[in-house]
Amino acid sequence: MTHLSRTQTTFAPPVMEARRWIEGVTFPEDRPLINVSQAAPVDTPPEPMLRAMADMVVNDASSHLYGPVLGLPELRAEIAKQWTASYGGTLAADQVAITSGCNQAFTAVTTALCTEGDEVILPVPYYFNHRMWLDMAGVKTVPLTPREGLIPHAEDAAALITDRTQAIVLVSPNNPGGVEYPAETLSAFYALCRSKNIKLIVDETYRDFDARDGAPHDLFTRDGWEETFIQLYSFSKAYRLTGHRVGAVCASQPILAEVEKYLDTVAICPNQIGQKAALWGMQNLGEWLAGERAEILDRRATINEGFHRLADKGWKLLGCGAYFAYVEHPFDLPSDEVAKKLVTEAGVLLLPGTMFMPDDNAAGKRQLRIAFANVDRAGINTLFDRLEQVAL
Amino acid sequence: MTHLSRTQTTFAPPVMEARRWIEGVTFPEDRPLINVSQAAPVDTPPEPMLRAMADMVVNDASSHLYGPVLGLPELRAEIAKQWTASYGGTLAADQVAITSGCNQAFTAVTTALCTEGDEVILPVPYYFNHRMWLDMAGVKTVPLTPREGLIPHAEDAAALITDRTQAIVLVSPNNPGGVEYPAETLSAFYALCRSKNIKLIVDETYRDFDARDGAPHDLFTRDGWEETFIQLYSFSKAYRLTGHRVGAVCASQPILAEVEKYLDTVAICPNQIGQKAALWGMQNLGEWLAGERAEILDRRATINEGFHRLADKGWKLLGCGAYFAYVEHPFDLPSDEVAKKLVTEAGVLLLPGTMFMPDDNAAGKRQLRIAFANVDRAGINTLFDRLEQVAL
Repeated sequence: MTHLSRTQTTFAPPVMEARRWIEGVTFPEDRPLINVSQAAPVDTPPEPMLRAMADMVVNDASSHLYGPVLGLPELRAEIAKQWTASYGGTLAADQVAITSGCNQAFTAVTTALCTEGDEVILPVPYYFNHRMWLDMAGVKTVPLTPREGLIPHAEDAAALITDRTQAIVLVSPNNPGGVEYPAETLSAFYALCRSKNIKLIVDETYRDFDARDGAPHDLFTRDGWEETFIQLYSFSKAYRLTGHRVGAVCASQPILAEVEKYLDTVAICPNQIGQKAALWGMQNLGEWLAGERAEILDRRATINEGFHRLADKGWKLLGCGAYFAYVEHPFDLPSDEVAKKLVTEAGVLLLPGTMFMPDDNAAGKRQLRIAFANVDRAGINTLFDRLEQVAL
Repeated sequence: MTHLSRTQTTFAPPVMEARRWIEGVTFPEDRPLINVSQAAPVDTPPEPMLRAMADMVVNDASSHLYGPVLGLPELRAEIAKQWTASYGGTLAADQVAITSGCNQAFTAVTTALCTEGDEVILPVPYYFNHRMWLDMAGVKTVPLTPREGLIPHAEDAAALITDRTQAIVLVSPNNPGGVEYPAETLSAFYALCRSKNIKLIVDETYRDFDARDGAPHDLFTRDGWEETFIQLYSFSKAYRLTGHRVGAVCASQPILAEVEKYLDTVAICPNQIGQKAALWGMQNLGEWLAGERAEILDRRATINEGFHRLADKGWKLLGCGAYFAYVEHPFDLPSDEVAKKLVTEAGVLLLPGTMFMPDDNAAGKRQLRIAFANVDRAGINTLFDRLEQVAL
């Protein structure tokens, strides 16, 4: 039998693969590439934050030294404080850990919970790095098909739970689906996980761009939430810190003691400049972030308002929120071929639905993800112009 | 049967555990703590580098954005260039990947090579994070007992190889042993691994502080080295970048394609400021680094010259090089108890040998690691004064 290493059991990084599709392709000056493949800011943090970071580099020696494995105490405390204010309930600083990005938060938590042959339930479409990690960890991904509006239902998940199931993972607002899960959905999943003694992991990377006012759920207010609920977060989007790799986990102290073993071994500690920048952002950029959110919500509105143009050509909008529109295309081709053709035929780079679900799931062949966050109102209209005209 | 997650199969981070030993302990002003527990610079990078980094923060937008998963092309190319100059042989930029620290390099490479139930051979004493990762990865650590002078022998390793063995890992200069493996040792291990079709992973984190002039081995000059040899490196020590988390892997392109899957999932990319700082250091701090090395070699000489004072009290110096002296203590107590008592009795924090080998290895109970890199000539003499006088 051929020996397969852990990495050989999973696929190549989709974002890197998509980048290769545009290598060597020339885009005419009057039709430059519209890149809606990745959900990442393309501008720097705001000027005052850059100056604060430069000061940390020059005048704060601790910026250059190892720090605690679970992150800067001040940043952990600030998250606890602000989360308590926004979600209600109780969250202590020692129930927060800082990671080198939210991907790492996911890998740390699942390593703390699972072992070879265990199972984790992911709604489809899923975030591909979640699937890649579970593959590499020897954990079986159990796909959960959502119902109307890409919303997964707890009773469907209940039927998938076995004695190997350790957790259900929800991403809300959802990547790639763009859907904001209702509080009742999270509540139902919480009740299910609690009754089955498994964990509910909720990745809230896009929480700062949720269109709803107020807390998106009340899970932190539940007595003993930390027995069941684990929250993941990223600083990459809110403060444009993608290149600095800072994320967070909120979980019980016993789980964080396990997470500490993993993080010590894989990272030793998160980098200090990124952590200090995240803390500075939390303390100084509240108003600025509100403006960022308003802009993203405007772009989302542009998608919703203009989508009828594509609907007339047979497209369907399945979900739209945070950084993403998730759509069904009208072409008689699988979505990975559609995506490749759109590079040359429309000057558009986006990711096919096939990247967000198992190969045997036919739905993915009809679906595409449009990561619109970097494209302004005018750009989204241009994107619609191009997609409206394309014939494949 | 109790369910054990991956992290539950391994131990808590030794460095964090040692830090807990000094919590709440008051050290008198005339006898402050001498901390020789961790191998890490405690000063900032040199001033010109700090200014260069501040400039990157303020004036280089790419410092804040995602970069390629395998690292900055310019840094990969600089390593290839400088390594080729110092080791001879051939190393191309696309045979180099950048990681978020050298620990991550190790976890990435072993995930690219191994799966559940595989085996990796580590000489004892080993670097504890290597052991922790293999535990978490479901890979069996096969300990290799070194001979005279803490030098492992390839013929001893040959007897440990099974059909599940994927790699042998050597750390040279060694942590915790302080030993610089002779070129002939590396050559013999390379020949063994090549003949058995397994990988030789050499962690050269401390290469910049090797006392020998010239290349420590000729493995990069071997035809097809990349079929067998994998080198790991860290920028933390050379340029005092511990808080920035930058390391590297040199390996074949097919292995790096597997490493890319892991790094994409666990880190997305290394942080940009750390990478740019490492590049700036490589291009501008050659002379400064030579001075750093001279200082470390002077400290090493201080250990060697003064150790007779401890030898008179029954201590033995087993290895001394790079950042470490590895010693045998004379006390009728296991080393973990010795280490804890030294905190209060001598104001010294160091790590016991038990942290660097399996529990059932009796040698660890007699051994201690002294990470002397942060202690100058006068401080080392004070350390000897205290250890000479202590009675346990």
